[in-house]
Amino acid sequence: MHSNPILAQAWRGGIVESAHRGAYAVVDADGTLHSSAGDIDHPIFPRSAVKVLQALPLVDSGAAERFGLTDAQLALACASHGGEPAHTTAAAAMLAQAGVDVQALECGAHWPYRDVTQRDMAARGETPTALHNNCSGKHSGFVCLGCHMAGDGADRGSLRGFLRGYVRPEHPVMREVTAALQASTGFDLADAAVGTDGCSIPTYAVPLRHLALAFARVATGQGLRPGLAAAARRLRAAVAAAPFMVAGTGRFDTRVMERLGARVFCKVGAEGVYCAALPEAGLGVAIKMDDGNTARGCEVVMAALIARLVRLDDAEQGFIAGLADVQLQNWNGITVGRLAAALD
Amino acid sequence: MHSNPILAQAWRGGIVESAHRGAYAVVDADGTLHSSAGDIDHPIFPRSAVKVLQALPLVDSGAAERFGLTDAQLALACASHGGEPAHTTAAAAMLAQAGVDVQALECGAHWPYRDVTQRDMAARGETPTALHNNCSGKHSGFVCLGCHMAGDGADRGSLRGFLRGYVRPEHPVMREVTAALQASTGFDLADAAVGTDGCSIPTYAVPLRHLALAFARVATGQGLRPGLAAAARRLRAAVAAAPFMVAGTGRFDTRVMERLGARVFCKVGAEGVYCAALPEAGLGVAIKMDDGNTARGCEVVMAALIARLVRLDDAEQGFIAGLADVQLQNWNGITVGRLAAALD
Repeated sequence: MHSNPILAQAWRGGIVESAHRGAYAVVDADGTLHSSAGDIDHPIFPRSAVKVLQALPLVDSGAAERFGLTDAQLALACASHGGEPAHTTAAAAMLAQAGVDVQALECGAHWPYRDVTQRDMAARGETPTALHNNCSGKHSGFVCLGCHMAGDGADRGSLRGFLRGYVRPEHPVMREVTAALQASTGFDLADAAVGTDGCSIPTYAVPLRHLALAFARVATGQGLRPGLAAAARRLRAAVAAAPFMVAGTGRFDTRVMERLGARVFCKVGAEGVYCAALPEAGLGVAIKMDDGNTARGCEVVMAALIARLVRLDDAEQGFIAGLADVQLQNWNGITVGRLAAALD
Repeated sequence: MHSNPILAQAWRGGIVESAHRGAYAVVDADGTLHSSAGDIDHPIFPRSAVKVLQALPLVDSGAAERFGLTDAQLALACASHGGEPAHTTAAAAMLAQAGVDVQALECGAHWPYRDVTQRDMAARGETPTALHNNCSGKHSGFVCLGCHMAGDGADRGSLRGFLRGYVRPEHPVMREVTAALQASTGFDLADAAVGTDGCSIPTYAVPLRHLALAFARVATGQGLRPGLAAAARRLRAAVAAAPFMVAGTGRFDTRVMERLGARVFCKVGAEGVYCAALPEAGLGVAIKMDDGNTARGCEVVMAALIARLVRLDDAEQGFIAGLADVQLQNWNGITVGRLAAALD
């Protein structure tokens, strides 16, 4: 593996305790490179950072309109959520509006990412279902798309048969999703490395340069056919209107978009990936940390890039600076260090 | 920061998805280097990986014998435990045997690391105390040492006064702990960088070469004065007899020592640190992963080094190989990749 530069450092006792290497690309909708660090032409798995690209067919197909999906539900289709009650309720409603239920989901079940929700459930004697999976919104979107594709004439049995296996690359639903990924990234996925994601759908290895291009296209609509451009605009607006749904309590994406609204669309992915669309600047951003640590490094780098690329007032700059250089506290609440972006 | 080699890789879809850089030193009790990778002379914070060194005064002072500490309790004094019932019960008993209670602990409270225990507590309406802190055994050991140092004549009030602030570097208890760290590592801590650990005690930056030396001394007793050598032997025997207490259900240290017994003493630390004493080979091992990720990278590297350095039968080799090259499964139980040591 290539050697990328250090982009974030964890400090303790006046010295660097740990460091995170990585690469990032900032690109405009023409594909012109605005800035970068490290190897941006090495294909990486974007994982959940591209959920907004995977949700484009849900809107473009007419499925979202047909089933009356709300802003909150469309935001959830782009989410890696904490499994909080608002998230699971919205996922269940999406499925109900399409005439199906949790049985249609093929993402698997896990306890909510948010520990408070996990303990609340345990206190009530509940166990998790596929609705609590952090990807349940995306999967509910896939299922809605499938229900739409199955057509009006499909009875319950044939609908179930059509939906089954929607996570597989060759299923008509996933073909639409992959086509949107290809159209937006402009990267030929036919020969790309393919892995299986945590929620069982395929993930295709794409260079950061192309991921950033896709998000510049999402930011501006340029380079996308009209249907996809409109879908991108609709999804950005939905997430800006309902930023809690895309992540959850205290999470970076939710905090940033609650504060900066439609000026930033950012989305985390597993294994240290982050993507963002910056409509005012007309730029797309894609980050991959070499060590795959999403909770550390990745977020401070994204915050530092937002600080550079987005026009912010003084208060907003202070807010973002606090996300790019984070105080680390121990179990007694004592500040023991900091985690900070180190872009230069 | 120096550029250390890649020591572990995460694979997905046939390509390397993420990689972990780091350094390790393997040293004998004379300080002769057996093998290494990366920069082993750069000081790093050993964090919880040196709990066994910090527990030496507990035994050496006579406190452990005086308060009748069991194998399980001595193992807990070296532990980063999951907060399971056996752990918290043992910590409470240590304190009771010394005539104090949980109020004496200064480590802070957090929910148990083990999620099942956390949910069980939530279901019973319980909230965490300092006993659930993963460091409560180490701190109970400090408190036992303090009660011993306070002497027989101390009444409850003066004992409480003496114990207060035992986490601070200048407290008589912490001075003993630091002296044991200095004696075992042979590294001058007077000028070392000092940070505050998660549980509020000081952590001193020590090069991997010296940490490995300390663990070779723990493994053999060579290079330690007789009292410390005997204490090291006692603590190793205690952990070998009660490996569950040093970590917990499903955890690497517990699994390895349950299987390999007294032939390996290994201990994880925060921020990607691992140390081990290998008595048969007379070697000490110290690892630091650059990215500070303890859950990933660190363990497979330790497993690969144990496979190299410890004489194992075929079944044991298979067991350790499974810890050095771990299959990664997703929420549907599908194998999606692997995490593997890459030492060569």
